[in-house]
Amino acid sequence: MTYCIGISLDAGLVLTSDSRTNAGIDHVSTYSKMHRCETNPDRCLIIMSAGNLATTQAVIQQARRDVQEGMPRNVNTLHYLADIAEYLGDVLVAKIRKHTEQTGFIPDATLILGGQVLGRNPNTYMIYPQGNYITSSEDTPYLQIGESKYGKPVLDRFITRETSLEDAAICSLISMDSTMKSNASVGPPIEMLIYSRDQFANPRHYRFEADNPYLLSVRHEWANQLNHAFRAMPRLENHDLSS
Amino acid sequence: MTYCIGISLDAGLVLTSDSRTNAGIDHVSTYSKMHRCETNPDRCLIIMSAGNLATTQAVIQQARRDVQEGMPRNVNTLHYLADIAEYLGDVLVAKIRKHTEQTGFIPDATLILGGQVLGRNPNTYMIYPQGNYITSSEDTPYLQIGESKYGKPVLDRFITRETSLEDAAICSLISMDSTMKSNASVGPPIEMLIYSRDQFANPRHYRFEADNPYLLSVRHEWANQLNHAFRAMPRLENHDLSS
Repeated sequence: MTYCIGISLDAGLVLTSDSRTNAGIDHVSTYSKMHRCETNPDRCLIIMSAGNLATTQAVIQQARRDVQEGMPRNVNTLHYLADIAEYLGDVLVAKIRKHTEQTGFIPDATLILGGQVLGRNPNTYMIYPQGNYITSSEDTPYLQIGESKYGKPVLDRFITRETSLEDAAICSLISMDSTMKSNASVGPPIEMLIYSRDQFANPRHYRFEADNPYLLSVRHEWANQLNHAFRAMPRLENHDLSS
Repeated sequence: MTYCIGISLDAGLVLTSDSRTNAGIDHVSTYSKMHRCETNPDRCLIIMSAGNLATTQAVIQQARRDVQEGMPRNVNTLHYLADIAEYLGDVLVAKIRKHTEQTGFIPDATLILGGQVLGRNPNTYMIYPQGNYITSSEDTPYLQIGESKYGKPVLDRFITRETSLEDAAICSLISMDSTMKSNASVGPPIEMLIYSRDQFANPRHYRFEADNPYLLSVRHEWANQLNHAFRAMPRLENHDLSS
Protein backbone atom coordinates (compact mmCIF):
# COMPACT_ATOMS: atom_id res chain seq x y z
CA MET A 1 0.00 0.00 0.00
CA THR A 2 0.98 3.64 -0.09
CA TYR A 3 0.12 6.93 1.49
CA CYS A 4 0.70 10.28 -0.23
CA ILE A 5 -0.60 13.73 0.71
CA GLY A 6 -0.65 16.81 -1.53
CA ILE A 7 -1.49 20.07 0.24
CA SER A 8 -2.17 23.24 -1.71
CA LEU A 9 -1.81 26.41 0.36
CA ASP A 10 -1.79 30.14 -0.30
CA ALA A 11 1.92 29.99 0.51
CA GLY A 12 2.74 27.05 -1.77
CA LEU A 13 2.68 23.28 -1.72
CA VAL A 14 3.60 20.52 0.72
CA LEU A 15 3.87 17.04 -0.80
CA THR A 16 4.55 13.96 1.32
CA SER A 17 4.90 10.28 0.45
CA ASP A 18 5.90 7.02 2.08
CA SER A 19 8.18 4.52 0.32
CA ARG A 20 6.83 1.04 1.00
CA THR A 21 5.63 -1.17 -1.83
CA ASN A 22 4.38 -4.68 -1.52
CA ALA A 23 3.21 -7.34 -3.91
CA GLY A 24 1.97 -9.86 -1.42
CA ILE A 25 2.89 -9.72 2.24
CA ASP A 26 6.29 -11.39 1.70
CA HIS A 27 7.39 -9.17 -1.18
CA VAL A 28 8.00 -5.82 0.47
CA SER A 29 10.37 -3.28 -1.06
CA THR A 30 11.30 0.37 -0.78
CA TYR A 31 10.58 2.60 -3.77
CA SER A 32 10.32 6.35 -3.90
CA LYS A 33 6.81 7.44 -4.85
CA MET A 34 7.79 11.07 -5.38
CA HIS A 35 9.01 11.87 -8.88
CA ARG A 36 10.49 15.24 -9.76
CA CYS A 37 10.11 16.09 -13.44
CA GLU A 38 13.10 17.62 -15.19
CA THR A 39 11.41 20.63 -16.74
CA ASN A 40 12.04 24.04 -18.22
CA PRO A 41 12.73 26.75 -15.60
CA ASP A 42 9.21 28.22 -16.13
CA ARG A 43 7.66 25.35 -14.17
CA CYS A 44 8.12 22.98 -11.27
CA LEU A 45 6.28 19.63 -11.41
CA ILE A 46 6.19 16.76 -8.95
CA ILE A 47 4.24 13.53 -9.38
CA MET A 48 3.34 11.18 -6.53
CA SER A 49 1.97 7.71 -7.23
CA ALA A 50 -0.08 4.98 -5.59
CA GLY A 51 -1.06 1.62 -6.99
CA ASN A 52 0.63 -0.76 -9.39
CA LEU A 53 4.37 -0.04 -9.44
CA ALA A 54 4.85 -1.22 -13.03
CA THR A 55 2.15 1.19 -14.19
CA THR A 56 3.52 4.21 -12.31
CA GLN A 57 7.06 3.51 -13.50
CA ALA A 58 5.77 3.23 -17.08
CA VAL A 59 3.90 6.55 -16.78
CA ILE A 60 6.90 8.43 -15.37
CA GLN A 61 9.18 6.94 -18.01
CA GLN A 62 6.78 7.84 -20.80
CA ALA A 63 6.46 11.42 -19.53
CA ARG A 64 10.27 11.78 -19.48
CA ARG A 65 10.66 10.19 -22.90
CA ASP A 66 8.05 12.50 -24.42
CA VAL A 67 10.19 15.45 -23.31
CA GLN A 68 13.44 13.92 -24.54
CA GLU A 69 11.98 13.04 -27.91
CA GLY A 70 10.40 16.47 -28.29
CA MET A 71 6.84 15.21 -28.64
CA PRO A 72 4.48 18.15 -29.21
CA ARG A 73 2.46 17.28 -26.11
CA ASN A 74 4.63 16.88 -23.03
CA VAL A 75 5.01 18.29 -19.51
CA ASN A 76 7.09 21.19 -20.85
CA THR A 77 4.88 22.32 -23.71
CA LEU A 78 1.52 22.55 -21.94
CA HIS A 79 0.55 25.91 -20.46
CA TYR A 80 -1.81 24.90 -17.67
CA LEU A 81 -1.33 22.49 -14.79
CA ALA A 82 -4.79 21.08 -15.62
CA ASP A 83 -3.61 20.27 -19.14
CA ILE A 84 -0.58 18.48 -17.73
CA ALA A 85 -2.94 16.49 -15.47
CA GLU A 86 -5.04 15.64 -18.54
CA TYR A 87 -1.92 14.54 -20.43
CA LEU A 88 -0.76 12.35 -17.53
CA GLY A 89 -4.27 10.90 -17.29
CA ASP A 90 -4.10 9.91 -20.97
CA VAL A 91 -0.69 8.27 -20.50
CA LEU A 92 -1.96 6.49 -17.38
CA VAL A 93 -5.06 5.12 -19.12
CA ALA A 94 -2.97 3.90 -22.07
CA LYS A 95 -0.52 2.04 -19.81
CA ILE A 96 -3.32 0.43 -17.79
CA ARG A 97 -5.32 -0.48 -20.89
CA LYS A 98 -2.42 -2.22 -22.58
CA HIS A 99 -2.01 -4.72 -19.76
CA THR A 100 -5.74 -5.10 -19.18
CA GLU A 101 -6.26 -6.05 -22.83
CA GLN A 102 -3.35 -8.48 -22.83
CA THR A 103 -4.08 -10.33 -19.59
CA GLY A 104 -7.36 -9.20 -18.06
CA PHE A 105 -5.47 -7.99 -15.00
CA ILE A 106 -6.12 -4.31 -14.27
CA PRO A 107 -2.91 -2.71 -12.94
CA ASP A 108 -4.60 0.41 -11.52
CA ALA A 109 -2.69 3.41 -10.30
CA THR A 110 -3.58 6.89 -9.05
CA LEU A 111 -1.40 10.00 -9.23
CA ILE A 112 -1.10 13.34 -7.50
CA LEU A 113 0.43 16.09 -9.62
CA GLY A 114 1.70 19.13 -7.73
CA GLY A 115 3.48 22.14 -9.07
CA GLN A 116 3.30 25.53 -10.68
CA VAL A 117 3.56 26.96 -14.19
CA LEU A 118 4.91 30.54 -14.49
CA GLY A 119 2.15 33.13 -14.36
CA ARG A 120 -0.34 30.81 -12.65
CA ASN A 121 -1.02 29.63 -9.11
CA PRO A 122 0.64 26.55 -7.65
CA ASN A 123 -1.86 23.72 -7.35
CA THR A 124 -2.38 19.99 -6.92
CA TYR A 125 -4.38 17.51 -9.01
CA MET A 126 -5.42 13.95 -8.28
CA ILE A 127 -5.50 11.80 -11.44
CA TYR A 128 -7.68 8.69 -11.38
CA PRO A 129 -6.98 5.38 -13.17
CA GLN A 130 -9.78 6.36 -15.56
CA GLY A 131 -7.73 9.39 -16.62
CA ASN A 132 -10.00 12.08 -15.20
CA TYR A 133 -8.84 14.31 -12.39
CA ILE A 134 -9.86 16.66 -9.59
CA THR A 135 -8.10 19.55 -7.94
CA SER A 136 -8.16 20.73 -4.34
CA SER A 137 -10.55 23.49 -3.27
CA GLU A 138 -10.77 26.36 -0.83
CA ASP A 139 -12.60 24.10 1.64
CA THR A 140 -10.56 20.96 0.98
CA PRO A 141 -7.01 22.13 0.36
CA TYR A 142 -5.49 18.65 0.43
CA LEU A 143 -5.60 15.50 -1.68
CA GLN A 144 -4.68 11.99 -0.54
CA ILE A 145 -3.98 8.76 -2.39
CA GLY A 146 -3.48 5.27 -1.03
CA GLU A 147 -4.19 4.39 2.61
CA SER A 148 -5.83 7.72 3.35
CA LYS A 149 -8.28 7.21 6.21
CA TYR A 150 -6.07 6.80 9.28
CA GLY A 151 -4.32 10.11 8.68
CA LYS A 152 -7.33 12.13 7.55
CA PRO A 153 -8.68 13.41 10.90
CA VAL A 154 -5.51 15.38 11.71
CA LEU A 155 -5.55 17.00 8.25
CA ASP A 156 -9.23 17.87 8.62
CA ARG A 157 -8.45 19.47 11.94
CA PHE A 158 -5.50 21.70 11.04
CA ILE A 159 -5.18 22.32 7.30
CA THR A 160 -6.75 25.39 5.70
CA ARG A 161 -5.56 27.44 2.73
CA GLU A 162 -4.02 29.92 5.20
CA THR A 163 -1.91 27.30 7.03
CA SER A 164 1.83 28.02 6.78
CA LEU A 165 4.14 25.70 4.86
CA GLU A 166 5.91 24.76 8.11
CA ASP A 167 2.66 23.88 9.90
CA ALA A 168 1.41 21.88 6.93
CA ALA A 169 4.72 19.99 6.88
CA ILE A 170 4.42 19.07 10.56
CA CYS A 171 0.76 18.12 10.10
CA SER A 172 1.69 15.88 7.15
CA LEU A 173 4.34 14.13 9.24
CA ILE A 174 1.82 13.52 12.03
CA SER A 175 -0.71 12.22 9.51
CA MET A 176 1.93 9.92 8.01
CA ASP A 177 3.05 8.76 11.46
CA SER A 178 -0.52 7.91 12.55
CA THR A 179 -0.94 5.91 9.35
CA MET A 180 2.31 3.99 9.81
CA LYS A 181 1.30 3.22 13.40
CA SER A 182 -2.06 1.73 12.30
CA ASN A 183 -1.10 0.10 8.98
CA ALA A 184 1.98 -2.03 8.34
CA SER A 185 1.82 -1.52 4.57
CA VAL A 186 2.82 2.16 4.85
CA GLY A 187 6.47 2.68 5.80
CA PRO A 188 9.55 4.87 5.79
CA PRO A 189 11.55 6.55 4.43
CA ILE A 190 9.12 9.46 4.22
CA GLU A 191 9.82 11.98 1.49
CA MET A 192 8.63 15.54 1.72
CA LEU A 193 8.83 18.42 -0.68
CA ILE A 194 8.07 21.97 0.39
CA TYR A 195 7.49 24.39 -2.46
CA SER A 196 7.09 28.14 -1.89
CA ARG A 197 4.84 29.99 -4.33
CA ASP A 198 6.86 31.34 -7.31
CA GLN A 199 9.99 29.50 -6.20
CA PHE A 200 10.30 27.21 -9.28
CA ALA A 201 13.90 26.16 -8.68
CA ASN A 202 15.15 24.14 -5.71
CA PRO A 203 12.12 23.33 -3.60
CA ARG A 204 13.14 21.95 -0.21
CA HIS A 205 13.30 18.18 -0.35
CA TYR A 206 13.53 16.01 2.77
CA ARG A 207 13.93 12.31 3.17
CA PHE A 208 13.21 10.99 6.65
CA GLU A 209 14.55 7.53 7.39
CA ALA A 210 12.86 5.61 10.23
CA ASP A 211 15.54 6.77 12.69
CA ASN A 212 15.71 10.38 11.52
CA PRO A 213 16.11 12.53 14.68
CA TYR A 214 13.54 15.11 13.60
CA LEU A 215 10.95 12.46 12.67
CA LEU A 216 11.58 10.76 16.02
CA SER A 217 11.23 14.07 17.87
CA VAL A 218 7.90 14.78 16.12
CA ARG A 219 6.62 11.29 16.95
CA HIS A 220 7.81 11.48 20.55
CA GLU A 221 6.50 14.98 21.17
CA TRP A 222 3.14 14.26 19.55
CA ALA A 223 2.73 11.14 21.73
CA ASN A 224 3.69 13.20 24.79
CA GLN A 225 1.30 15.97 23.93
CA LEU A 226 -1.57 13.57 23.22
CA ASN A 227 -1.00 11.84 26.54
CA HIS A 228 -1.17 15.20 28.22
CA ALA A 229 -4.31 16.08 26.22
CA PHE A 230 -5.94 12.79 27.13
CA ARG A 231 -5.33 13.33 30.83
CA ALA A 232 -6.88 16.79 30.59
CA MET A 233 -10.20 15.56 29.17
CA PRO A 234 -13.40 16.15 31.14
CA ARG A 235 -14.22 13.05 33.20
CA LEU A 236 -17.38 11.11 32.51
CA GLU A 237 -18.02 10.36 36.17
CA ASN A 238 -18.33 14.07 36.93
CA HIS A 239 -21.30 14.37 34.61
CA ASP A 240 -24.80 13.19 35.29
CA LEU A 241 -25.68 11.38 32.11
CA SER A 242 -27.63 8.34 33.09
CA SER A 243 -30.34 7.38 30.65
CA MET B 1 -22.25 3.19 7.17
CA THR B 2 -21.64 2.49 10.83
CA TYR B 3 -18.95 2.64 13.44
CA CYS B 4 -18.91 0.42 16.54
CA ILE B 5 -16.10 -0.23 19.03
CA GLY B 6 -15.91 -3.07 21.53
CA ILE B 7 -13.15 -2.76 24.13
CA SER B 8 -12.29 -5.62 26.46
CA LEU B 9 -10.35 -4.54 29.57
CA ASP B 10 -9.23 -6.16 32.78
CA ALA B 11 -11.83 -3.96 34.47
CA GLY B 12 -14.69 -4.83 32.14
CA LEU B 13 -16.11 -3.76 28.80
CA VAL B 14 -16.77 -0.48 26.98
CA LEU B 15 -19.05 -0.75 23.95
CA THR B 16 -19.79 2.24 21.71
CA SER B 17 -21.91 2.63 18.59
CA ASP B 18 -23.19 5.37 16.31
CA SER B 19 -26.79 5.42 15.07
CA ARG B 20 -26.77 6.44 11.42
CA THR B 21 -28.02 4.09 8.73
CA ASN B 22 -28.27 4.85 5.06
CA ALA B 23 -29.50 3.04 2.02
CA GLY B 24 -28.30 5.46 -0.61
CA ILE B 25 -27.28 8.98 0.21
CA ASP B 26 -30.88 10.28 0.32
CA HIS B 27 -32.20 7.57 2.57
CA VAL B 28 -30.62 8.33 5.92
CA SER B 29 -32.20 7.20 9.17
CA THR B 30 -31.41 6.79 12.83
CA TYR B 31 -31.36 3.27 14.24
CA SER B 32 -29.77 2.00 17.41
CA LYS B 33 -27.03 -0.50 16.64
CA MET B 34 -26.64 -1.59 20.24
CA HIS B 35 -28.93 -4.42 21.29
CA ARG B 36 -29.19 -5.56 24.89
CA CYS B 37 -30.30 -9.19 25.20
CA GLU B 38 -32.90 -10.01 27.85
CA THR B 39 -31.12 -12.86 29.59
CA ASN B 40 -30.98 -14.87 32.78
CA PRO B 41 -29.22 -13.08 35.63
CA ASP B 42 -26.14 -15.30 35.23
CA ARG B 43 -25.10 -13.37 32.12
CA CYS B 44 -25.04 -9.99 30.45
CA LEU B 45 -24.96 -9.88 26.63
CA ILE B 46 -24.83 -6.94 24.22
CA ILE B 47 -24.77 -7.19 20.45
CA MET B 48 -23.63 -4.36 18.14
CA SER B 49 -24.21 -4.55 14.42
CA ALA B 50 -22.88 -3.14 11.15
CA GLY B 51 -24.06 -3.80 7.63
CA ASN B 52 -27.46 -4.60 6.19
CA LEU B 53 -30.17 -3.41 8.58
CA ALA B 54 -32.72 -6.05 7.54
CA THR B 55 -30.17 -8.78 8.29
CA THR B 56 -29.19 -7.43 11.71
CA GLN B 57 -32.84 -6.92 12.70
CA ALA B 58 -33.60 -10.48 11.59
CA VAL B 59 -30.69 -11.88 13.63
CA ILE B 60 -31.66 -10.00 16.80
CA GLN B 61 -35.29 -11.01 16.41
CA GLN B 62 -34.37 -14.67 15.87
CA ALA B 63 -32.11 -14.66 18.94
CA ARG B 64 -34.95 -13.25 21.06
CA ARG B 65 -37.49 -15.66 19.62
CA ASP B 66 -35.25 -18.66 20.31
CA VAL B 67 -35.27 -17.67 23.99
CA GLN B 68 -39.04 -17.07 24.11
CA GLU B 69 -39.80 -20.37 22.41
CA GLY B 70 -37.39 -22.27 24.65
CA MET B 71 -35.22 -23.58 21.84
CA PRO B 72 -32.47 -25.83 23.25
CA ARG B 73 -29.74 -23.64 21.74
CA ASN B 74 -30.18 -19.98 22.63
CA VAL B 75 -28.28 -17.11 24.28
CA ASN B 76 -29.44 -18.31 27.72
CA THR B 77 -28.58 -21.99 27.46
CA LEU B 78 -25.00 -21.79 26.19
CA HIS B 79 -22.24 -21.81 28.79
CA TYR B 80 -19.45 -19.97 26.98
CA LEU B 81 -19.41 -16.59 25.29
CA ALA B 82 -17.61 -18.26 22.35
CA ASP B 83 -20.53 -20.67 21.95
CA ILE B 84 -22.96 -17.76 21.91
CA ALA B 85 -20.80 -16.14 19.22
CA GLU B 86 -20.93 -19.41 17.26
CA TYR B 87 -24.70 -19.56 17.64
CA LEU B 88 -25.12 -15.95 16.48
CA GLY B 89 -22.79 -16.70 13.55
CA ASP B 90 -25.05 -19.58 12.50
CA VAL B 91 -28.16 -17.39 12.72
CA LEU B 92 -26.36 -14.64 10.76
CA VAL B 93 -25.28 -16.98 7.98
CA ALA B 94 -28.80 -18.44 7.69
CA LYS B 95 -30.38 -14.98 7.38
CA ILE B 96 -27.85 -13.83 4.77
CA ARG B 97 -28.06 -17.08 2.80
CA LYS B 98 -31.84 -16.96 2.54
CA HIS B 99 -31.82 -13.63 0.72
CA THR B 100 -28.75 -14.44 -1.33
CA GLU B 101 -30.43 -17.59 -2.67
CA GLN B 102 -33.68 -15.78 -3.41
CA THR B 103 -32.28 -12.71 -5.14
CA GLY B 104 -28.53 -12.95 -5.64
CA PHE B 105 -28.11 -9.85 -3.45
CA ILE B 106 -25.82 -10.52 -0.48
CA PRO B 107 -27.10 -8.55 2.55
CA ASP B 108 -23.89 -8.83 4.58
CA ALA B 109 -23.65 -7.84 8.22
CA THR B 110 -21.00 -8.07 10.93
CA LEU B 111 -21.61 -8.24 14.68
CA ILE B 112 -19.73 -7.53 17.88
CA LEU B 113 -20.86 -9.58 20.87
CA GLY B 114 -19.79 -8.28 24.26
CA GLY B 115 -20.65 -9.62 27.68
CA GLN B 116 -19.96 -12.04 30.46
CA VAL B 117 -21.25 -15.42 31.59
CA LEU B 118 -21.05 -16.17 35.35
CA GLY B 119 -17.78 -17.85 36.31
CA ARG B 120 -15.93 -16.66 33.20
CA ASN B 121 -14.20 -13.47 32.09
CA PRO B 122 -16.02 -10.69 30.28
CA ASN B 123 -15.00 -10.60 26.64
CA THR B 124 -15.84 -9.38 23.14
CA TYR B 125 -16.22 -11.30 19.87
CA MET B 126 -16.42 -10.08 16.30
CA ILE B 127 -18.69 -12.27 14.16
CA TYR B 128 -18.15 -12.19 10.41
CA PRO B 129 -20.85 -12.56 7.70
CA GLN B 130 -19.39 -16.04 7.07
CA GLY B 131 -20.31 -17.02 10.63
CA ASN B 132 -16.80 -17.42 12.01
CA TYR B 133 -15.51 -15.10 14.72
CA ILE B 134 -12.48 -13.69 16.48
CA THR B 135 -11.97 -12.37 19.98
CA SER B 136 -9.77 -9.56 21.24
CA SER B 137 -6.30 -10.31 22.59
CA GLU B 138 -3.84 -9.05 25.18
CA ASP B 139 -2.12 -6.96 22.51
CA THR B 140 -5.27 -5.87 20.67
CA PRO B 141 -7.91 -5.36 23.33
CA TYR B 142 -10.44 -3.75 21.01
CA LEU B 143 -12.58 -4.76 18.03
CA GLN B 144 -14.13 -2.42 15.48
CA ILE B 145 -16.83 -2.88 12.84
CA GLY B 146 -17.93 -0.50 10.10
CA GLU B 147 -15.99 2.64 9.25
CA SER B 148 -13.05 1.74 11.45
CA LYS B 149 -9.96 3.44 10.04
CA TYR B 150 -10.41 7.11 10.95
CA GLY B 151 -10.79 6.34 14.61
CA LYS B 152 -8.17 3.60 14.91
CA PRO B 153 -5.03 5.69 15.62
CA VAL B 154 -6.38 7.07 18.90
CA LEU B 155 -7.35 3.57 20.08
CA ASP B 156 -3.92 2.21 19.11
CA ARG B 157 -2.35 4.99 21.11
CA PHE B 158 -4.23 4.72 24.39
CA ILE B 159 -6.01 1.39 24.85
CA THR B 160 -4.33 -1.47 26.69
CA ARG B 161 -5.88 -4.20 28.86
CA GLU B 162 -4.96 -2.12 31.94
CA THR B 163 -6.79 1.04 30.76
CA SER B 164 -9.57 2.07 33.13
CA LEU B 165 -13.21 1.91 32.08
CA GLU B 166 -13.42 5.72 32.30
CA ASP B 167 -10.37 6.28 30.12
CA ALA B 168 -11.57 3.75 27.56
CA ALA B 169 -14.95 5.51 27.48
CA ILE B 170 -13.33 8.89 26.76
CA CYS B 171 -11.02 7.33 24.17
CA SER B 172 -14.02 5.73 22.45
CA LEU B 173 -15.82 9.07 22.30
CA ILE B 174 -12.74 10.73 20.77
CA SER B 175 -12.44 7.88 18.26
CA MET B 176 -16.12 8.23 17.39
CA ASP B 177 -15.84 12.02 17.13
CA SER B 178 -12.83 11.83 14.78
CA THR B 179 -14.78 9.41 12.60
CA MET B 180 -17.89 11.63 12.49
CA LYS B 181 -15.69 14.59 11.57
CA SER B 182 -14.16 12.74 8.59
CA ASN B 183 -17.11 10.64 7.40
CA ALA B 184 -20.66 11.87 6.96
CA SER B 185 -22.13 8.35 7.07
CA VAL B 186 -21.35 7.96 10.78
CA GLY B 187 -23.57 10.04 13.04
CA PRO B 188 -25.18 10.65 16.42
CA PRO B 189 -26.73 9.76 18.74
CA ILE B 190 -23.79 7.83 20.14
CA GLU B 191 -24.65 4.98 22.48
CA MET B 192 -22.20 3.75 25.06
CA LEU B 193 -22.38 0.89 27.52
CA ILE B 194 -19.89 0.54 30.36
CA TYR B 195 -19.82 -2.86 32.01
CA SER B 196 -17.77 -3.56 35.14
CA ARG B 197 -16.42 -7.09 35.52
CA ASP B 198 -18.90 -9.31 37.44
CA GLN B 199 -21.55 -6.60 37.42
CA PHE B 200 -24.15 -8.56 35.36
CA ALA B 201 -27.14 -6.35 36.18
CA ASN B 202 -27.51 -2.69 35.19
CA PRO B 203 -24.43 -1.76 33.19
CA ARG B 204 -24.18 1.98 32.71
CA HIS B 205 -25.84 2.99 29.45
CA TYR B 206 -25.38 6.42 27.88
CA ARG B 207 -26.97 7.97 24.84
CA PHE B 208 -25.27 11.12 23.59
CA GLU B 209 -27.31 13.26 21.25
CA ALA B 210 -25.40 15.62 18.95
CA ASP B 211 -25.91 18.49 21.41
CA ASN B 212 -25.16 16.53 24.59
CA PRO B 213 -23.17 18.87 26.86
CA TYR B 214 -20.63 16.21 27.84
CA LEU B 215 -20.04 15.12 24.22
CA LEU B 216 -19.63 18.78 23.26
CA SER B 217 -17.20 19.35 26.12
CA VAL B 218 -15.11 16.33 25.05
CA ARG B 219 -15.07 17.54 21.45
CA HIS B 220 -14.24 21.11 22.44
CA GLU B 221 -11.54 20.16 24.91
CA TRP B 222 -9.92 17.63 22.57
CA ALA B 223 -9.78 20.26 19.79
CA ASN B 224 -8.29 22.75 22.27
CA GLN B 225 -5.73 20.30 23.50
CA LEU B 226 -4.74 19.22 19.99
CA ASN B 227 -4.28 22.85 18.97
CA HIS B 228 -2.04 23.30 21.96
CA ALA B 229 -0.17 20.08 21.11
CA PHE B 230 0.27 21.18 17.50
CA ARG B 231 1.75 24.52 18.52
CA ALA B 232 4.21 22.73 20.82
CA MET B 233 5.67 20.52 18.08
CA PRO B 234 9.39 20.85 17.21
CA ARG B 235 9.79 23.18 14.23
CA LEU B 236 11.21 21.87 11.00
CA GLU B 237 13.17 25.06 10.29
CA ASN B 238 15.20 24.57 13.48
CA HIS B 239 16.58 21.27 12.19
CA ASP B 240 19.22 20.82 9.54
CA LEU B 241 17.66 18.20 7.32
CA SER B 242 18.49 19.14 3.76
CA SER B 243 19.04 16.23 1.47
